[in-house]
Amino acid sequence: MTDYSTNMRMRLPVVCIVLEVILIILFGILVEYDGHTDAKKWHNNKTNDMENDFYYRYPSFQDVHVMIFIGFGFLMTFLQRYGFSSVGFNFLIAAFSLQWATIMQGVLHGLHHGKIHVGVLNMINADFCTGSVLISFGAVLGKTSPIQMLVMAIFEVTLFAVNEYILIVHLGARDAGGSMTIHTFGAYFGLMVTRVLYRPNLSKSKDRNCSVYHSDIFAMIGTIYLWMFWPSFNSAITALGDVQHRTALNTYYSLAACTLATYGFSALVNHEGKLDMVHIQNAALAGGVAVGTAGEMMLTPFGSMIVGFLAGTISVLGYKYLSPILESKLKIQDTCGVHNLHGMPGVLGAIVGAITAAAASSSIYGQGIVDVFPDINDEHTASQQALMQIASLAVTLGFALLGGLIVGFILKLPIYGAPPDTLCFEDSIYWEMPGEEESHGELTTVKTPEETEKLN
Amino acid sequence: MTDYSTNMRMRLPVVCIVLEVILIILFGILVEYDGHTDAKKWHNNKTNDMENDFYYRYPSFQDVHVMIFIGFGFLMTFLQRYGFSSVGFNFLIAAFSLQWATIMQGVLHGLHHGKIHVGVLNMINADFCTGSVLISFGAVLGKTSPIQMLVMAIFEVTLFAVNEYILIVHLGARDAGGSMTIHTFGAYFGLMVTRVLYRPNLSKSKDRNCSVYHSDIFAMIGTIYLWMFWPSFNSAITALGDVQHRTALNTYYSLAACTLATYGFSALVNHEGKLDMVHIQNAALAGGVAVGTAGEMMLTPFGSMIVGFLAGTISVLGYKYLSPILESKLKIQDTCGVHNLHGMPGVLGAIVGAITAAAASSSIYGQGIVDVFPDINDEHTASQQALMQIASLAVTLGFALLGGLIVGFILKLPIYGAPPDTLCFEDSIYWEMPGEEESHGELTTVKTPEETEKLN
Amino acid sequence: MTDYSTNMRMRLPVVCIVLEVILIILFGILVEYDGHTDAKKWHNNKTNDMENDFYYRYPSFQDVHVMIFIGFGFLMTFLQRYGFSSVGFNFLIAAFSLQWATIMQGVLHGLHHGKIHVGVLNMINADFCTGSVLISFGAVLGKTSPIQMLVMAIFEVTLFAVNEYILIVHLGARDAGGSMTIHTFGAYFGLMVTRVLYRPNLSKSKDRNCSVYHSDIFAMIGTIYLWMFWPSFNSAITALGDVQHRTALNTYYSLAACTLATYGFSALVNHEGKLDMVHIQNAALAGGVAVGTAGEMMLTPFGSMIVGFLAGTISVLGYKYLSPILESKLKIQDTCGVHNLHGMPGVLGAIVGAITAAAASSSIYGQGIVDVFPDINDEHTASQQALMQIASLAVTLGFALLGGLIVGFILKLPIYGAPPDTLCFEDSIYWEMPGEEESHGELTTVKTPEETEKLN
Repeated sequence: MTDYSTNMRMRLPVVCIVLEVILIILFGILVEYDGHTDAKKWHNNKTNDMENDFYYRYPSFQDVHVMIFIGFGFLMTFLQRYGFSSVGFNFLIAAFSLQWATIMQGVLHGLHHGKIHVGVLNMINADFCTGSVLISFGAVLGKTSPIQMLVMAIFEVTLFAVNEYILIVHLGARDAGGSMTIHTFGAYFGLMVTRVLYRPNLSKSKDRNCSVYHSDIFAMIGTIYLWMFWPSFNSAITALGDVQHRTALNTYYSLAACTLATYGFSALVNHEGKLDMVHIQNAALAGGVAVGTAGEMMLTPFGSMIVGFLAGTISVLGYKYLSPILESKLKIQDTCGVHNLHGMPGVLGAIVGAITAAAASSSIYGQGIVDVFPDINDEHTASQQALMQIASLAVTLGFALLGGLIVGFILKLPIYGAPPDTLCFEDSIYWEMPGEEESHGELTTVKTPEETEKLN
Repeated sequence: MTDYSTNMRMRLPVVCIVLEVILIILFGILVEYDGHTDAKKWHNNKTNDMENDFYYRYPSFQDVHVMIFIGFGFLMTFLQRYGFSSVGFNFLIAAFSLQWATIMQGVLHGLHHGKIHVGVLNMINADFCTGSVLISFGAVLGKTSPIQMLVMAIFEVTLFAVNEYILIVHLGARDAGGSMTIHTFGAYFGLMVTRVLYRPNLSKSKDRNCSVYHSDIFAMIGTIYLWMFWPSFNSAITALGDVQHRTALNTYYSLAACTLATYGFSALVNHEGKLDMVHIQNAALAGGVAVGTAGEMMLTPFGSMIVGFLAGTISVLGYKYLSPILESKLKIQDTCGVHNLHGMPGVLGAIVGAITAAAASSSIYGQGIVDVFPDINDEHTASQQALMQIASLAVTLGFALLGGLIVGFILKLPIYGAPPDTLCFEDSIYWEMPGEEESHGELTTVKTPEETEKLN
Repeated sequence: MTDYSTNMRMRLPVVCIVLEVILIILFGILVEYDGHTDAKKWHNNKTNDMENDFYYRYPSFQDVHVMIFIGFGFLMTFLQRYGFSSVGFNFLIAAFSLQWATIMQGVLHGLHHGKIHVGVLNMINADFCTGSVLISFGAVLGKTSPIQMLVMAIFEVTLFAVNEYILIVHLGARDAGGSMTIHTFGAYFGLMVTRVLYRPNLSKSKDRNCSVYHSDIFAMIGTIYLWMFWPSFNSAITALGDVQHRTALNTYYSLAACTLATYGFSALVNHEGKLDMVHIQNAALAGGVAVGTAGEMMLTPFGSMIVGFLAGTISVLGYKYLSPILESKLKIQDTCGVHNLHGMPGVLGAIVGAITAAAASSSIYGQGIVDVFPDINDEHTASQQALMQIASLAVTLGFALLGGLIVGFILKLPIYGAPPDTLCFEDSIYWEMPGEEESHGELTTVKTPEETEKLN
């Protein structure tokens, strides 16, 4: 039924199993419990079980976890015949990436006598890195094989960790919610990959590159979960106390303002004043992306709402006017429009972060300034911090674009079982398909790829 | 494709953007971080980061947040052609209401030198107020435009805040889970609005005023999330410690008992003994509503289960016998049956709260009595507290009915783009519709409103 | 429309209402608040509201709650015409079981002057017991009436509590995540019940014993929620501090490794290399089951990943090769394949737990050993603990198989309204069905059971 090029019989098992075996070996060599998860270490040092990191980070972790697996996974089910792959490959890529991220982030962010010490913060950071890979997945959705995605994840996780390391450790950047490290990086990396993988004849699959009624409602599950838990995402790894609290609050109001902007502009740009599900599903989230850097700062709810409003606006306008141009002029086929949801709002978030950092002072933060800007002191002014924030954006864009370019070419090799132009956005080439819904008394079966191909 | 009356081209953008701009300005003038979110204030006063409110309230907040956006949103997707609007307008109205509620509740519940101080408790209270608006939305679902809903939200949030202020501050009522302030208020307000907006020819849309197989399963997502997280809802703003713990426990058992009553009576009232999805989706939740007031009190699991059982019973019987009468005799077209889920169980909850308050004494609560009944002392007896609870119910019903009456007439003005009688319960007048599911090899498109109109 | 045998008109109401009334009476006689939920007791003893159990257990409880009601409920919606029953009967059975489990576990695990003291730990344990019943429900899914399931739950909850009591109290077994008590017990109990209820002519309903496209996506909602929250499940009742933290971490990595194994072997065993949704929906979860016992121990992430990898592998192979043999040779019709998801991985988890316990020592755990192995001391060696773990597995298997046998015969009585062979996996015999989706302009209705029967 399936021609050779997309048959995964040996390739996917070999890749999955070999990668997992390598991961297990690396974990065996490198990974140890940290002071909050190791029985002996904890009991040697502890004062009180209730001071374990678990109680202050794990609820945030679970919210982030839901965003990664339900949020991203279901957001991408909007395609009518790609629901299995959207949720299923999201699941596969994320399960791989979080393990690989534990290793790469652990190695870069500080080994302890040659060992990576793990606890709940590592779980959150691994999920964050995974989020970045899933953003890139959104750009190439429907046009790649699961093996291509795993290969992309191998490289992207590595580059993510290196970029993050440079930003946080060397440039001293603040980016708790990842406007730069997660969103900007993931979006531009993915856009460059999809540019390199450009398919001039993708229109042969255009009948499937759209939603149906129920698939749009499934996608709203993803949207709403991302929207609700974004306050937890942005605050998951900030300093404890007021910082975490403030970040959640800022994100809450930013998203609410963003949502009204999204509905307003979605109706405005439609010639009949109708709302477009693509905008609601995506642009309403841009407010979370855009306060990813500044959310922990004293941005105020007022400032957060302005940022959210702008983010929703540019995101809707991007979907309406910029995406068609990117596709026709720059040959960037961005399936989920990640440029509008993660790219531009991510850059906006980086700039807002720099501006807010520039305004930092002890008169605003009091003694709390060390929690948000540990580097700011008499030597290192707020303006210098702002400069480092902007430098971090530039570094991130550089890594993302260059990395995406190279990885794009690696993914172009004809060995991964990518779908032909006529069978993009189609589950049946990688999945055993169930029968179709009983209707008028007969059980019809799904068209085979060959039949589908003939139709095109 | 769309006739003028429902075209949202300029109206929805203007309303959304103007409202959001006003909100942003109000936040700029009025809103400040509170002592747990402001860097300076927190660090001036703090003893320990782990004592920040965030750690004791935020998990509850997130559960409430899920109820508001997923719970209410998906519960209403049961209509076959109104899924986009159910989830989508729920999203819009809620995003607006939570901002507006922050302002209104903040202004009424105590300004600090002219400023509203915000933290996680404000987020929970804003979500609560939003819940009330969404209950009213349920009563008019399918028969109103998004602009009507935003206008309704402007007034309802305001009245909600005033009513809540009178109850809590002036009458000293206890209502942590909102049997009165949220459910009774939201239900009777919405019922009065839908009464005023009565459509004698709504039967022209009756083909769409029902569910299909998949839409009922989507609705169950909403039901189950509401059911699971109701213990968090009722306990979100109670005193810390035993009170919060007890409230969650009482609600857990109340809901479980309610569910068995719902299944039992649903099968009993059906002439073939079949279960009705409408009952399961709604009545099984009545147990949460009915312990909204007494949940924090020493109601005992035993008492909670009795209340839950009664709530499930009256809710099913309401759907079966009362709703048809309300529609035919009182001309109340209650799309989601909010009278059965929120109205009657809310009143029941208020009465149960008064009875339980009347039985309060130091011999039962020990020193914990001040957490639940701060007003009870030698001067103010438990019976007086019970009286104040009943007075609060009366005030709430008065505000809801009078408010709903006035707002109903405001919403009757022919300027909001309400759907014609033939196009109620129909997404396509407000949303760009995707193609229909591929079936038998052809991609069919959704009928335009004009075509649909002809069929009726 | 419905023949007598499946008509629930009087039977389901009587069963639901009588059971609930009995439960309410039992709660009235036996149940009291515990020291963390009772106002007086808490205020007499308390040091600090923030030390209330609620803050350390309730977030875990809510995650477990989601797994029970959304996870199990939606996982079983994969059947094309059994979505109402899957979610709806899951809801009913769980709401009953958690109340009954509170009583049975309370009576067995220690009365206080004849009273059961309840708080959040009781809620978690009741949900755990419910999980076991739902596993058994998965084995008989589609072939039983709701009354049969309630009767099964009455007996299974009782046996569960007795088995758990023997394991924990008498054998001193460690099983925080329930590899034995929950998964092994639930699976083999259910398998035995379905064996006794063997239907030689079940093939008459085979057209409905499979999924359709959307039902598989609904099922993925269940899968992903189970997968995400399994770390909370395994850690919900462990000791506080490092133990809870470590358990969540181990489960996280076990599941990730399991997922890669699942994808790899799913593609490997398919002759076209296509992925099978049944494997992804189920086998990817086996990693959580298999660290249910050892998760709290110093298994290390490395060890957890090996266990997860093995669990995923045997689960996929079980679905592919063992399930057909169980059905054809042993006449075990296991609708959801619980043997592959809960049975074998549960046994694996028990064995892994015994091995890990055998390796326990103070040099590894330090003073933390008392939290994980309170029984291990100079008298009672780690090897003896391991032996008790294995004995516990044997006892569990004995209880499950013998209990399932007896309960199976009880359920065989022709008084519960079980569906005929031709109408298994069919919602319409127990539910009022909505119309079918509008399609090509006409509203078709669901076939009545009689019509369906004629087709077979």
